[in-house]
Amino acid sequence: MAGREQKKSGGGGKKKEVKKETGLGLSFTKDENFGEWYSEVVVNGEMIEYYDISGCYILRPWAISIWENMQTFFDAEIKKMKVKNCYFPLFVSPGVLQKEKDHIEGFAPEVAWVTKSGESDLEVPIAIRPTSETVMYPYYSKWIRGHRDLPLKLNQWCNVVRWEFSHPTPFIRSREFLWQEGHTAFATKEEADTEVLQILELYRRIYEEFLAIPVIKGRKSELEKFAGGLYTTSVEAFIPNTGRGIQGATSHCLGQNFAKMFEINFENEKGEKAMVWQNSWAYSTRTIGVMVMVHGDDKGLVLPPKVAAVQVIVIPVPYKDADTQGIFDACAATVASLSEAGISAEADLRDNYSPGWKYSDWEMKGVPLRIEIGPRDLANNQVRAVRRDNGAKTDISRVFLVEQVKGMLDKIQQNLFDVAKQKRDACVEVVKTWDEFVTALGQKKMILAPWCDEEDVEKDVKARTKGEMGAAKSLCTPFEQPELPEGTKCFASGKPAKKWTYWGRSY
Amino acid sequence: MAGREQKKSGGGGKKKEVKKETGLGLSFTKDENFGEWYSEVVVNGEMIEYYDISGCYILRPWAISIWENMQTFFDAEIKKMKVKNCYFPLFVSPGVLQKEKDHIEGFAPEVAWVTKSGESDLEVPIAIRPTSETVMYPYYSKWIRGHRDLPLKLNQWCNVVRWEFSHPTPFIRSREFLWQEGHTAFATKEEADTEVLQILELYRRIYEEFLAIPVIKGRKSELEKFAGGLYTTSVEAFIPNTGRGIQGATSHCLGQNFAKMFEINFENEKGEKAMVWQNSWAYSTRTIGVMVMVHGDDKGLVLPPKVAAVQVIVIPVPYKDADTQGIFDACAATVASLSEAGISAEADLRDNYSPGWKYSDWEMKGVPLRIEIGPRDLANNQVRAVRRDNGAKTDISRVFLVEQVKGMLDKIQQNLFDVAKQKRDACVEVVKTWDEFVTALGQKKMILAPWCDEEDVEKDVKARTKGEMGAAKSLCTPFEQPELPEGTKCFASGKPAKKWTYWGRSY
Repeated sequence: MAGREQKKSGGGGKKKEVKKETGLGLSFTKDENFGEWYSEVVVNGEMIEYYDISGCYILRPWAISIWENMQTFFDAEIKKMKVKNCYFPLFVSPGVLQKEKDHIEGFAPEVAWVTKSGESDLEVPIAIRPTSETVMYPYYSKWIRGHRDLPLKLNQWCNVVRWEFSHPTPFIRSREFLWQEGHTAFATKEEADTEVLQILELYRRIYEEFLAIPVIKGRKSELEKFAGGLYTTSVEAFIPNTGRGIQGATSHCLGQNFAKMFEINFENEKGEKAMVWQNSWAYSTRTIGVMVMVHGDDKGLVLPPKVAAVQVIVIPVPYKDADTQGIFDACAATVASLSEAGISAEADLRDNYSPGWKYSDWEMKGVPLRIEIGPRDLANNQVRAVRRDNGAKTDISRVFLVEQVKGMLDKIQQNLFDVAKQKRDACVEVVKTWDEFVTALGQKKMILAPWCDEEDVEKDVKARTKGEMGAAKSLCTPFEQPELPEGTKCFASGKPAKKWTYWGRSY
Repeated sequence: MAGREQKKSGGGGKKKEVKKETGLGLSFTKDENFGEWYSEVVVNGEMIEYYDISGCYILRPWAISIWENMQTFFDAEIKKMKVKNCYFPLFVSPGVLQKEKDHIEGFAPEVAWVTKSGESDLEVPIAIRPTSETVMYPYYSKWIRGHRDLPLKLNQWCNVVRWEFSHPTPFIRSREFLWQEGHTAFATKEEADTEVLQILELYRRIYEEFLAIPVIKGRKSELEKFAGGLYTTSVEAFIPNTGRGIQGATSHCLGQNFAKMFEINFENEKGEKAMVWQNSWAYSTRTIGVMVMVHGDDKGLVLPPKVAAVQVIVIPVPYKDADTQGIFDACAATVASLSEAGISAEADLRDNYSPGWKYSDWEMKGVPLRIEIGPRDLANNQVRAVRRDNGAKTDISRVFLVEQVKGMLDKIQQNLFDVAKQKRDACVEVVKTWDEFVTALGQKKMILAPWCDEEDVEKDVKARTKGEMGAAKSLCTPFEQPELPEGTKCFASGKPAKKWTYWGRSY
């Protein structure tokens, strides 16, 4: 998907604002031109501003508030797990960065290097972290000495830089992004294995409970796993419009590979020298992009209530001879009641826009519920509620305002998930042969196929599906495995199949 | 103050742990060798680990938890002021960075440049933000068009990089640090002026109410103000041991200088084109360093209760024939009662350390209150509370545990402030002549002197006091001005004095 990079010009143009004031909304539809639609909706919804450096984006308050809502949840959950926050430097010296061979091979092409400060050349170029395994682990080696120092569980909220050249896309693929990265060390593999899944479950909850996006939990293939790790688990989402899978978040068991390279040893309870087992896990601002892609529509963003900065927007609808002050007061009272009940509500009392213009404006920004208050509502002591997800209109007595609004927000949250799941499920195709696979791929499906689990076969699938749209690859082997009848053959190699695995094009 | 850079070696040595286990505590005293003491206490208190890139430091959980406590306060306060969080890129293109001449002159020598990604040279070198005025303001120009778009109030929590070469010191002067930076734009100078002081008051509260450090609110001289701004206000702290002032946080009115350069115009209510008035304001992880310097002692860190991750540490003191299980249960019950009351309490039940060793350990880490529970305490249904700030011991009946502990934590918070203020005040010296000034400077004082407020005179003071310890400069002109009798002369130039100003050496 091509980002609309021509929009990136800093400072100058004021095109967007002009368009907005004419009330034209989006120039592209989600179904007809998904790429342009996405670029436009993140800008017009005021989440993103294109920046004058390609692949870097400004995250506006509307996006950051979603990030903060997820962060509040996740940070509290990991603190319950005794994970502690810390902050390691942005910079890595080349020596440590290159210590783990597979790891650096995976990241080297994307590493940004600082070589100068002021007018002077640095003695040694210094890398900017693409991820912090090599930044942190020399110190894990220093801090961990005995079994009592374990487990060590650290996390940091920070920015990382991966200077990618392919298709920069806001949130989804950017040269700098925000994330959390957890890095933990255990005495035993069992503890590490357990934590990998605990964290993965939190990632599932972020997607399913907060962002209302169905995901599949599973394990990555050897080819797709984290560079230098033992195995990678992930939650995988799917974008029906492009027919591409998207890795939502990853929880890696690093095994002992990094421990070996960085000499992270400890004396175990028997007094013997042992090596730690490590995990690392991360989710990033990519989550927000997936949310926009899954829920957004031709009117703009659609925000799930649990992450929306504003859950309810209250709009006065005055008429010529009506009691305008009374309507404004009712709006203020409505906001006050909802706010008191812990619902994030705001009134839009701007006097230079019509109610209709405001409806479009807040629809573009994706606010889950709109409340309109006009003369008739005032007379009947009611408000009119309009759902962003399906446009349904309901008159609510002001007597039952809070409970009704709460109920509607819950329903919107659930409905967004249900609709997204229905659409996602409709894209899943079970195939057993190469021909079926190719057909399904052409139909932009997320393909579940029996696989022999051989790396060369995956490479072969990639090679055979290469083309303008990008090659297919394995997305994950789901933990929930359908029955695999004896004698089932791999869709690609014809060898005996070992597991069901999801395949498709991906971001 | 020289940071102990020889300690920076990554990964290898395990000196500290060994020393800790022998219970030796700190090798340096605060009064005899402040610089070494500071370097040691931030490491042994587990706030900092030296990193293998000079001037970069690892902020360990013990430091980050303090940062988070301040952040929770400040973030909520600015949100009440309708400031919204956002995130702008780490990278700046050279064109915009150099747009404001004075500004770039101030920062250019410290800017780190990315010139390569992977193996390829970038077409144009890209700067890493030393601060974000030039990153943000081209977009302020885009977003602000009419008076209804004002005020625009944004803030971001992020890292910035200033590649300084002089005296790197953990927290105080590091090449990368964490901060918040607020950037606001208003229609009128009055609104900007008002906000400058509102924010400065929040900074005062961070120092005085949270970190228990007295600060002086005032205005910076023309020579010391923010590069490119109109005027700078600050809260200034003082480190008695080194006799140096330290800028605690700054709230700048940028005037219209940046607005002119970046063309941040709007149509005012009369339909005329006008230029915005801007502020920027920031506080950083430096706050934590000031806290360590002011409160720490020869036993280690001393944390004010309002920012401490652990406010109360509960330590069992079992005896040979005592009811060990009973003591452990009492410890657990104590932690439970305190936690339930919103006090952050933990029990140290490690079985491989003696109570005495644990006392030293938690004293090193600066926990405000220690609770000991031994057989006698168990028998009397009491606990023994020991204050970190003054060592005072009190037996508390378990019946009144929560209210007594709350009271003690409040007293500790207040006492830390009072003691710090007493020490700071004892360092303030009022002088009227150059000779008095030189004498006071030699005595490491914070000097209040009548000044003519001329830039050349400040330059002259700097030149005349140059030496091994660094030159003196103006710290701030305090808002609270003592009376300035008619005819008072400037301490340095003999010209008519215009105001009282603080002078001294500084960080």
